[in-house]
Amino acid sequence: MPTSTVPRSSLALRRIALFEGLADTCLERLAGECDWRTVDARTPVFTRNSDGGEVFFLVAGRARITTYSPQGREVSFRDCEAGEHFGDLSAIDDAPRSADVVTLESSVLASLRPQAFIALLQREPMVAMRILRDLAAKVRGLTERVIELSTLGVQTRLHAELLRLAHAAGVSDNQARIDPAPPHAALASKISTNREQVTRELNALAKSGLLRKDGAHALVVTDVRRLDTLVADVRGA
Amino acid sequence: MPTSTVPRSSLALRRIALFEGLADTCLERLAGECDWRTVDARTPVFTRNSDGGEVFFLVAGRARITTYSPQGREVSFRDCEAGEHFGDLSAIDDAPRSADVVTLESSVLASLRPQAFIALLQREPMVAMRILRDLAAKVRGLTERVIELSTLGVQTRLHAELLRLAHAAGVSDNQARIDPAPPHAALASKISTNREQVTRELNALAKSGLLRKDGAHALVVTDVRRLDTLVADVRGA
Repeated sequence: MPTSTVPRSSLALRRIALFEGLADTCLERLAGECDWRTVDARTPVFTRNSDGGEVFFLVAGRARITTYSPQGREVSFRDCEAGEHFGDLSAIDDAPRSADVVTLESSVLASLRPQAFIALLQREPMVAMRILRDLAAKVRGLTERVIELSTLGVQTRLHAELLRLAHAAGVSDNQARIDPAPPHAALASKISTNREQVTRELNALAKSGLLRKDGAHALVVTDVRRLDTLVADVRGA
Repeated sequence: MPTSTVPRSSLALRRIALFEGLADTCLERLAGECDWRTVDARTPVFTRNSDGGEVFFLVAGRARITTYSPQGREVSFRDCEAGEHFGDLSAIDDAPRSADVVTLESSVLASLRPQAFIALLQREPMVAMRILRDLAAKVRGLTERVIELSTLGVQTRLHAELLRLAHAAGVSDNQARIDPAPPHAALASKISTNREQVTRELNALAKSGLLRKDGAHALVVTDVRRLDTLVADVRGA
């Protein structure tokens, strides 16, 4: 990847949620152990099935964890914001990468070799506990997605995804403003369908008054409770 | 659940893979901390969305981790054999159960309260490392399943599942004997389709000579390499 090195900084590592509460001496040691680089937007950090077990800390910028089928269909998993980490699976089990990671913006990355990462987990039980909770959350999220893909139709999967985005954006007075709203193609790869079907379902929601465009980039869910009911009725939750 | 208590036994905990290599004193302490019970076949151990964070060690028997959609459709995750553990997600993140667990045979279960489980992880880094690897494996398995559900048709998903079963059963001379083969309904819930479609695809494979029934319960994959090629061609792997 086209990169330039950046100065090592324990201060920058303070921004990483995984390291919250660590002592200065510990962060200084980590800053020295990490490789540091800036990466342009739209640069692959690593690709699915490749070797390498470095753990990456996103000091600044944004990255997408995703993969592509041989037919070119994208299956996206999550977007990493500054302060998050990725790449720990391969450090833990020494197996190839499970997904592609690509930067969405120009980003600053610190990366730790797998041995140094495992040593950190053994030195700092607090960090190990966070990794356990983080993996547990991933198992839960993927389990939900398998259940949704197995039992819900495209329409309800889109409603469920909009509901997640609404709650992530913050609900106030039963409304939520998703800004920026993901492009239709990104929504499609998140719920495993095609862009056309997303566009059709979003238009149907707009027509029913549940969704409203706001400027070029934002979507407003006008009745979060009603959307919640739509999903709950199908799910039986 | 209908249960009867069984004697506490550190010897029985020796059968649990998670505890391999632990000192006798450590196992004796754990045996004392655990609740012990025998459970009949087809008994629910816990249900999705219920509270409770005990971690279960399957000393003897077999259990299925599964869930049901409101429409009654089963989505199954894995079968636990004697020596395995389950229920650790809720112990780690204090959230409700992510799936149902039901015994398939009469089983002996030891269970540890969440606080005692977390204390064990902090006392025994080897056990913590195994839980990390186990969660990483679950994230990988579920990621594959999401990718398969999102990008592969039912036919290829069935081929991929048969290939997994063949490799788990052991391949010798390019053949694998899956015994007992899962019922068609169980295969269907594993690859998120219906029983009729599984039956149709299995018949097609038998007709092509790739699969052969052997007695009442076994299936023989007659050409594992050809099955592998079928899946790889679609996956592009």
